[in-house]
Amino acid sequence: MAKNIEEQLVKYLTDVHALEEQALQQLKKAAQIAGDPETAQVYRDHLAETEEQERLVRARLEAHGAGPSRVKDVAMKVGGLGAGLTAQLSPDTPGKLAASSFSFEHLEIASYELLHRVAQRAGDEETATVAQRILEQERAAAQKVAGTFDRAVERSLQDQGATA
Amino acid sequence: MAKNIEEQLVKYLTDVHALEEQALQQLKKAAQIAGDPETAQVYRDHLAETEEQERLVRARLEAHGAGPSRVKDVAMKVGGLGAGLTAQLSPDTPGKLAASSFSFEHLEIASYELLHRVAQRAGDEETATVAQRILEQERAAAQKVAGTFDRAVERSLQDQGATA
Repeated sequence: MAKNIEEQLVKYLTDVHALEEQALQQLKKAAQIAGDPETAQVYRDHLAETEEQERLVRARLEAHGAGPSRVKDVAMKVGGLGAGLTAQLSPDTPGKLAASSFSFEHLEIASYELLHRVAQRAGDEETATVAQRILEQERAAAQKVAGTFDRAVERSLQDQGATA
Repeated sequence: MAKNIEEQLVKYLTDVHALEEQALQQLKKAAQIAGDPETAQVYRDHLAETEEQERLVRARLEAHGAGPSRVKDVAMKVGGLGAGLTAQLSPDTPGKLAASSFSFEHLEIASYELLHRVAQRAGDEETATVAQRILEQERAAAQKVAGTFDRAVERSLQDQGATA
């Protein structure tokens, strides 16, 4: 594998790893904000899935010689993609949680789409397979979040005593 | 229309208006970062569409007695949703632009999904129609952004001299 494409691959891997760490933080708070048990379960289920995704991506990083300390470092300072996103969105209602989660899932989807392409170009079949697998999980999670929109609106109107 | 649901509707309208203002800022820079003429055109086309969306949403806000100064005010300080998102993502490469734009389009999609439901509950057919129309445009824009993923990867590898 050419040195430069290897560097690009590691860069895309560190980006998605930082996103997974961000997702873990966000999902731990999500169940409390969800507003109803069914929505809370959507976020709990995706938290379990996300823990596995973080491990899978970390293993691919390590296979490319990027050790845990470097990973942690990148996740702390990640300049471009994902950092601060959750903090800025700071969802405090079921409606904002639904919108920000739907958006975040699509940030992950796009990032794995890119990683998948770079891994294929680099001839790293193992990373391409991991990217494809996680991509399918993120797409399914995004659909489940979309399934919470009705309940989120219902809840935000109830909370305001605004049922017409 | 009950007072409280009217308040909720105006709140959802101000959220999507703030997102459109954010989108206008982001899209004005996007063509420069795009990396190739075809991708730049995707963002220029969506900028023209977004200018119309901002006007449509502003008209609905004004129909509910929310004047321009209030609109501007909310857009400046918008606490929860959208503010700072673009700044934090600060895309500086075609790959990051593609990922952050795809994510932002889905933040808009979710927000219009919620607005559409609240408008229907409030019996405001005109806002519901505007929300549905913009929703379809945002979905189409998200698909066009997804169509830039291949070129974004190509470009990021070329820029690094990393073509395998």
